[in-house]
Amino acid sequence: MNSIGRLFRVSIFGESHGECVGITIDGCPAGLALTVEDMLPDLERRKGGQQKGTTPRQEDDIPKIMSGVFNGITTGFPITLIFENKNTRSEDYSKQRSIPRPGHADWVAHQKFGGFEDYRGGGHFSARLTTGIVAAGAIAKKLLNAGGTSPSPLERELEGEVFNPITIQAAVTEIGGEKDTEAGLQKAIAAKDSVGGIIECRVQGLPVGLGEPYFDSLESALAHILFAIPAVRGVEFGTGFAASAMFGSEHNDAIEDMTGKTKTNHAGGIVGGISNGNELVFRLAVKPTSSTPKEQNSLNWETGQTENFSIKGRHDLCVALRAPVIVEAVTALVVADFMLLQQHIKRIL
Amino acid sequence: MNSIGRLFRVSIFGESHGECVGITIDGCPAGLALTVEDMLPDLERRKGGQQKGTTPRQEDDIPKIMSGVFNGITTGFPITLIFENKNTRSEDYSKQRSIPRPGHADWVAHQKFGGFEDYRGGGHFSARLTTGIVAAGAIAKKLLNAGGTSPSPLERELEGEVFNPITIQAAVTEIGGEKDTEAGLQKAIAAKDSVGGIIECRVQGLPVGLGEPYFDSLESALAHILFAIPAVRGVEFGTGFAASAMFGSEHNDAIEDMTGKTKTNHAGGIVGGISNGNELVFRLAVKPTSSTPKEQNSLNWETGQTENFSIKGRHDLCVALRAPVIVEAVTALVVADFMLLQQHIKRIL
Amino acid sequence: MNSIGRLFRVSIFGESHGECVGITIDGCPAGLALTVEDMLPDLERRKGGQQKGTTPRQEDDIPKIMSGVFNGITTGFPITLIFENKNTRSEDYSKQRSIPRPGHADWVAHQKFGGFEDYRGGGHFSARLTTGIVAAGAIAKKLLNAGGTSPSPLERELEGEVFNPITIQAAVTEIGGEKDTEAGLQKAIAAKDSVGGIIECRVQGLPVGLGEPYFDSLESALAHILFAIPAVRGVEFGTGFAASAMFGSEHNDAIEDMTGKTKTNHAGGIVGGISNGNELVFRLAVKPTSSTPKEQNSLNWETGQTENFSIKGRHDLCVALRAPVIVEAVTALVVADFMLLQQHIKRIL
Amino acid sequence: MNSIGRLFRVSIFGESHGECVGITIDGCPAGLALTVEDMLPDLERRKGGQQKGTTPRQEDDIPKIMSGVFNGITTGFPITLIFENKNTRSEDYSKQRSIPRPGHADWVAHQKFGGFEDYRGGGHFSARLTTGIVAAGAIAKKLLNAGGTSPSPLERELEGEVFNPITIQAAVTEIGGEKDTEAGLQKAIAAKDSVGGIIECRVQGLPVGLGEPYFDSLESALAHILFAIPAVRGVEFGTGFAASAMFGSEHNDAIEDMTGKTKTNHAGGIVGGISNGNELVFRLAVKPTSSTPKEQNSLNWETGQTENFSIKGRHDLCVALRAPVIVEAVTALVVADFMLLQQHIKRIL
Repeated sequence: MNSIGRLFRVSIFGESHGECVGITIDGCPAGLALTVEDMLPDLERRKGGQQKGTTPRQEDDIPKIMSGVFNGITTGFPITLIFENKNTRSEDYSKQRSIPRPGHADWVAHQKFGGFEDYRGGGHFSARLTTGIVAAGAIAKKLLNAGGTSPSPLERELEGEVFNPITIQAAVTEIGGEKDTEAGLQKAIAAKDSVGGIIECRVQGLPVGLGEPYFDSLESALAHILFAIPAVRGVEFGTGFAASAMFGSEHNDAIEDMTGKTKTNHAGGIVGGISNGNELVFRLAVKPTSSTPKEQNSLNWETGQTENFSIKGRHDLCVALRAPVIVEAVTALVVADFMLLQQHIKRIL
Repeated sequence: MNSIGRLFRVSIFGESHGECVGITIDGCPAGLALTVEDMLPDLERRKGGQQKGTTPRQEDDIPKIMSGVFNGITTGFPITLIFENKNTRSEDYSKQRSIPRPGHADWVAHQKFGGFEDYRGGGHFSARLTTGIVAAGAIAKKLLNAGGTSPSPLERELEGEVFNPITIQAAVTEIGGEKDTEAGLQKAIAAKDSVGGIIECRVQGLPVGLGEPYFDSLESALAHILFAIPAVRGVEFGTGFAASAMFGSEHNDAIEDMTGKTKTNHAGGIVGGISNGNELVFRLAVKPTSSTPKEQNSLNWETGQTENFSIKGRHDLCVALRAPVIVEAVTALVVADFMLLQQHIKRIL
Repeated sequence: MNSIGRLFRVSIFGESHGECVGITIDGCPAGLALTVEDMLPDLERRKGGQQKGTTPRQEDDIPKIMSGVFNGITTGFPITLIFENKNTRSEDYSKQRSIPRPGHADWVAHQKFGGFEDYRGGGHFSARLTTGIVAAGAIAKKLLNAGGTSPSPLERELEGEVFNPITIQAAVTEIGGEKDTEAGLQKAIAAKDSVGGIIECRVQGLPVGLGEPYFDSLESALAHILFAIPAVRGVEFGTGFAASAMFGSEHNDAIEDMTGKTKTNHAGGIVGGISNGNELVFRLAVKPTSSTPKEQNSLNWETGQTENFSIKGRHDLCVALRAPVIVEAVTALVVADFMLLQQHIKRIL
Repeated sequence: MNSIGRLFRVSIFGESHGECVGITIDGCPAGLALTVEDMLPDLERRKGGQQKGTTPRQEDDIPKIMSGVFNGITTGFPITLIFENKNTRSEDYSKQRSIPRPGHADWVAHQKFGGFEDYRGGGHFSARLTTGIVAAGAIAKKLLNAGGTSPSPLERELEGEVFNPITIQAAVTEIGGEKDTEAGLQKAIAAKDSVGGIIECRVQGLPVGLGEPYFDSLESALAHILFAIPAVRGVEFGTGFAASAMFGSEHNDAIEDMTGKTKTNHAGGIVGGISNGNELVFRLAVKPTSSTPKEQNSLNWETGQTENFSIKGRHDLCVALRAPVIVEAVTALVVADFMLLQQHIKRIL
C-alpha cells in the first residue's frame, strides 16, 4: 500500500505536521557511495519558496540517514531516511476541520479512516511526503550510472563503445494552457487563483528490454507511480492522446538500423510495453492547486449545510512547478527496479 | 509479471497461435453462481468480425472452466479458464519473421527474449490474450453485484435504502479525431489505413473509500492495468489533461451534501487517490492498429537493410472498436480487488 | 495465495476429481530446452501404485504443455501445464459427505468456504495437486544446471574450474519411527493402519549467498513451501531440534578455508539465513496418512452426533513414501528463485 | 525482503551499532488506541540483563513513534517506530574483523554484500533488530482483542456468547536438553559455554478458518516468520516430529462437536493448513548462542590461515531465554494478517 517496487522497493511514512516524513529503500545494491550531499541538489529543486508561485513554508529538508549506509557506502540493507518536521503551523488546519476543502482528500480521508486521520496539513496525503521520494530518486539516479552494470560503463568505454549514461529530465512545458509558462503563471497571479500545468519527462540511455509482460509493462509501472504523485490527472506516452487521431501509417515508427533506432518516435520509446532503446518520452497533466486563494463553497459536516470559506495556510499557486524533480524521482525508481530485474545492475557494485 | 491484483488476482497465459490462451482467477469468494453463459455476452462484444473495421479471424471464444467451480458455484479456489486456439494461420507470420513490424513488439521481444519468443501472431503480446481478461472481468462484474456485500444489496433495500448497483460502461467516443465515430471509421476505410480512437469509461455506484495510500491510489491501480491493454497510449481521469489549463476555482468540485455528492465532477470521482462516491470517469487514448494495410518500411535484421513490405494476416482497422469491453473488464478487476480489501465484499457470499 | 515465488513464480489450480490439476510457471528464463519427457521421470516417482504402501489410483500423469514453450524451447512467457483427471471415483466421497474425516481438511474447508468447496477426493487440498508441483520442480531442476549461469558451467570448466552441478536429493529415512523403512512399513501393514515418516533432503553445489535478510531467509523460504506440502508437520535444518541440546562450542562449525568449507556441518549449509556453500541439509516430519484403513469416530454434522465409520477410496498407507520427489521439487523452486534474484541465472539462457 | 505480511505488513530496518533499529507497520486499522506504554511490557521481556544468562548490554528500548498515530490513536497510515542505539561498543568488533565468527553471519554477509556490510555487532543480522518486531507484535496483540472484530467481542458478549480473547503465550520448555530449564542453564554456566533450547507457543481463541490454500497455509506463514528469528533451527506443529512415528489411528483427532472441538489435539490446531478452532500449538528449536565464551577456531581471511580466538563483547549464554516474547510477536503479526484477510478485523475499529 505505502510501498512500491519489486527489487528496488520504497516504503513511505510520515505526516505533514507530525514528527517527520520519511522513506525506506529496500533492495539498493551494496557498494554505492552515498552521502546526504548526493540528495541535496534534487531536494533543493523540490523545495518551496525558491521560485515565484510556490509555498513560503520553509523546511531545511536535509535527510538523516538512519540505516543502510556504513562508512559512506550502501550496505545492501534497508536505507531509512528521516526528514524532521520543524516549520509547522497546525492551527491553520484545526480551525476549519469540519469543512472539507474541495479538491483535497479531507472528505474521503474522513470517510475511509473514520475520522482518525491526521488532518493537519493533509497529513499523509500532503505533498510534503514527496520529500522522501525525491531523496530516494536521487539514490536511484546515482545507482543507474554507478558502474555496477554488466559490463560496466567503464568497461564498455574501454572496449570502444560510446557510453550513454542514463539521464532523466523533466520540465514544465505548459501552465494554465500557455506554452510560455511565465505568461501562464502571471495569468494565475493576476486572477488570484491557482493554476494547472503540463510536465514532460525525457529519459535517454535506456537499454532495450525494460518492461515485463503482461501486467508490468513499462507504461504500467510508470503510470502506477506517476498517478501516486498528488494532483496528477493524466499520463500519456509518446504522441499519447494525439495518437488517437492519427492513421497507422503516420504513427508507426520505422526501424532504421540494428540498434533499433526509429525514424520517428511517436511511440515515445516503448513498444509492446517494453523499452525499444529510443528516447523515453511521456507527459503528465497536473491539476491546479486545490488550495486556491479564492473563496470557495463546501459542506460543513457538523452543520450539514454548505458555506463559503477561504483557505488559509501557505500553498503553491501551481504545484506543477515543484513537480518535475518528483517526476524524475519516481521515474528513476521504476527504471532502477527494471534494471535490477533485467540484471543490468549487479547486486554488488 | 503476468499476474495482477492483491486479493482478487488474475494470472494470464497463452499465445495467439499456440494451444490456447487462458487466465486463472485467484481469490474469487466462494458462493458465486457461475456458468460459461455468464461470460458469453462480454466475450461476444470482444470478438472480431462482428462489426465493420474488425478482424475477420473468428474463434468461438467459449471458455472451458478447468477448476474452481463446483455444481455451478465458485468454490473459493482458483478458477482457470481455457480458450483453445483453433482458427490459426501461422504461415502468415513466419514468412516475414526477419522484418519486425513497426508499432508491434516484434523487435523488442526478439531482443528481450533472445529470439525464443513465439512470434506467430504476436504470441503472448497478441490482443487475443484479452479474451481471458474479458472473461475474468465478467466474473468480477457479477461478483460486484452478487449480494455478498455487507450489508447486502437486498438487506439494504429491505431497510428502505435505494440500492445502487455498480455499473461499468465503456464506449468509443472518438475515432480518428472525429466525435462522429462512423465518420472517423469511414475516413480510415477511405484512406485504406488503420486509425486510433478514444474510449471513455463511466462507473456508477462505487462506495466512498476505494483506493489506498500512497502508491495504490485508485488512479494508480486503474492506470496500471489500463496500460497493460495493447495500444493504450494515454489515460486521464475526470477533466484530465484539460485540468492543466484550468484555474483551481474552476476545477475544484464543491461538496454539496453528506453523501459527498459534488456540484461538478471535474475530479472524475477520485480525490486524493480515493473514490468519493461520485461517478468514476476516465478516458483512454488508443493508437491506430499497428497492422495497417498500407505498405511500410522496416529493417530486415537478416540483411541489415531496410525494405518496404506489406502486412498480411487478418487485422482490425481500429482496435479501439473492440476495446471497450476490455476496459470494462480490467476496471471490474480493480474494483473487485479494492472492494474485497475494503471488506465490502465478503469472502463467502 | 495459490502462488509462490518472487522471480520464478508458480501458481497452482485444479481439484482432485474436477477437470484437471495444473500449474503455471511464470518467470522461467527464455532458452531452456523443454519437453514433456523432461518431467516424466520425476512424475513417475510421484505416482501411486508403483511401490508397496501407495494408493492404487492410477493416472497417467502426463502433462500437456499449454503455453510458454515454442519449438521445444521456453519462450520466457508463462508455462501452463495441465494434467487431466481421468481415473476418478467420486461416489466414494459423496456418500460420507456429512462426516468430516479426521485429519483431513473436510471440516475446516466446510467452515471456511461455506460448503461450496469441491469435497470430492479432498478437492483442491488433495495430494494430487502436487503433480503440478513435481512437474514445475523438474523444470526448475533442469534450469539450475542449464548453463545459463554467468559464467556458465561450460565456461567455468573451460577455465579449469571443477564444475559442481546443483543436485537435490530427498529420501525417506524413517517410517513409523524405524530407520529400517521396510520394517516400519511392515509394522503398518501388520497393524492395518497408516503410518508417518521422516524425509531428509540434501542439496549440493549451491553457491554462497542465497537467502535474503530479514524475512526471506533461506530457511524461511524453504519452510514456507515445505509446509504447503500436505501432511508435513515439522521442518528442521542441519542438526535441527538436536541443536537445542548442544553447547555452542559443539554446534558451531569452524570455517576451514577460503571457499567457506566448514569442518562440521551442524548448520546444514545455512548461516544467518544465507547459504554458506556447504551441503544444504534439512528434514521433514510427515504425519501418518489421515485416511487410515482403521475404523474411526467423527461428528456427523447433519445429525450433530458422533459416529463410527470407515474410509473408503484408494489411499497411501504412508504418504511419506511418495513425498521425496515433491520435497525435491519445492526445493528446486526456491533455489531457482534465489538464483535468479542473485543473478546466478540469466534471464535468457 | 525486509518486509512481510499481506494486509498487516511490517518492514524492518537498522543496524545493531548504527543510528537506530526500527520498524514500519503498514495496514494497521484506524482507531486503535496506542501509546508507547502499550509496547513496554513486551519490550521489557525482550531486554537483556534482566535475567541470568542474558547479555549485560542495556538499552532503554523505548520506541519513538514517528508516524501513524495521532492523538494517541492509530490513523490507518504507516506506523514507524525508532529505537535509538546508545549503548554501543563497536571497537569489540572491528578488532577481529578478518576472522568470521563461527555460527554467525560474518562470512556469508561478507561474501553476499561484498564487504560493504556493517559488521559491527552483526549489523542488520543482530538480534537487536527483534526490538522492532516485539513492538510491532505488541500492537498486533492489542489489535487482536480490540473489539474491531465483526461482530465485536462486546456485541458477542451482549448476545450471550462467552467471549474468548485471543491469547498468545510462549515459554522456554527445555534448555540444553533439560526440561528443568534452571538445571540446563546451570549446566551451561558450569561448562562456560553457550547452550540451546526449546520454545513452545500456545494460542487460544483463534477462529476457525485462518490459513489460505495452497502456499499460504497457516503453518507456512508461521514457519516463514519463525525461521526469520535468528538462531531458530526447527519448527514443528502439534505432535510434530513425533507424528512421524505414529499410526494414523493414533494421530487423527476425532471431532466431537459442532464447534470443531477435537478429543485430542495432535494436529496442534491446524488441519489442511487452516486453523480448526482448537488450541494452536507449536515448538521451535533454538541453537546455542554462536558467541560462546569458549575459545574457537576459524579462518582469518587476511592470512588465509585458521587460528584460535575468543569472542569478546556482551552476549547471551542462551538466546532461547529472550526469544519467547519474539515468538509471540511474530505469531501475533501472522494472526493479525490472517484475521484482516478473513475479515474478522475491520479496517476501521
